[in-house]
Amino acid sequence: MIVRDLNQARQTERHVFSKGWDSVRLLLKSDKMGFSFHITTIHAGAELPMHYKHHFECVYCIEGVGSIEDGAPGEIHRIGPGTMYALDQNDRHILRADPGAPMVMACVFNPPVTGSEVHQDDGSYALESESA
Amino acid sequence: MIVRDLNQARQTERHVFSKGWDSVRLLLKSDKMGFSFHITTIHAGAELPMHYKHHFECVYCIEGVGSIEDGAPGEIHRIGPGTMYALDQNDRHILRADPGAPMVMACVFNPPVTGSEVHQDDGSYALESESA
Repeated sequence: MIVRDLNQARQTERHVFSKGWDSVRLLLKSDKMGFSFHITTIHAGAELPMHYKHHFECVYCIEGVGSIEDGAPGEIHRIGPGTMYALDQNDRHILRADPGAPMVMACVFNPPVTGSEVHQDDGSYALESESA
Repeated sequence: MIVRDLNQARQTERHVFSKGWDSVRLLLKSDKMGFSFHITTIHAGAELPMHYKHHFECVYCIEGVGSIEDGAPGEIHRIGPGTMYALDQNDRHILRADPGAPMVMACVFNPPVTGSEVHQDDGSYALESESA
């Protein structure tokens, strides 16, 4: 059994930072669960165009409010605590946090993230072989 | 893109009930994400011996406090908001919620749960072929 604590993991290299968001990777590919599990904070007012061409992602909102735009441009869904969205079509999307407070999200990736990915210019994560 | 809301899903057959817990299955095998994603409530004071022989499970505590016993008997870890545990060895375990308040957990299963499983006498979920 693996047991990890969010606040302890924040003090380690599991905590990664990018423009408009930061994320604590509680499970990575190396944990051999077949998926990775992250607690990601979307900074207040952030607007994040993303396109995971190689990964399915499920996102569950724990705190905060904002919106997800499905496609670019596309339909906009409001997000608050209890909303889940799943990118089952490698969907291009734009995530926006309302001003005033960050959003805290639980995120699951399949295939699992290795921990060394950064967003590429097209908003995707590279597959491991591509990022080598 | 799939978008689902916890409170809406509570009113559907996605909400399943058992002794000491209930669970809202926001993603199931039929969603073809390669994992399932559930928001599970462990009732206050519940003691749940479990043994997922056929599934890996990651559990992230959103609300409430309790403990996880790794093995039976085994080492006990306290759980509160921000604690994650991952059953990467098909570990036998006992989950306990402290009296006074329920625990709310985000759970990920690999392989994904179909939605028709119940806990068997040995605390496991059957694989789909076994439950047919």
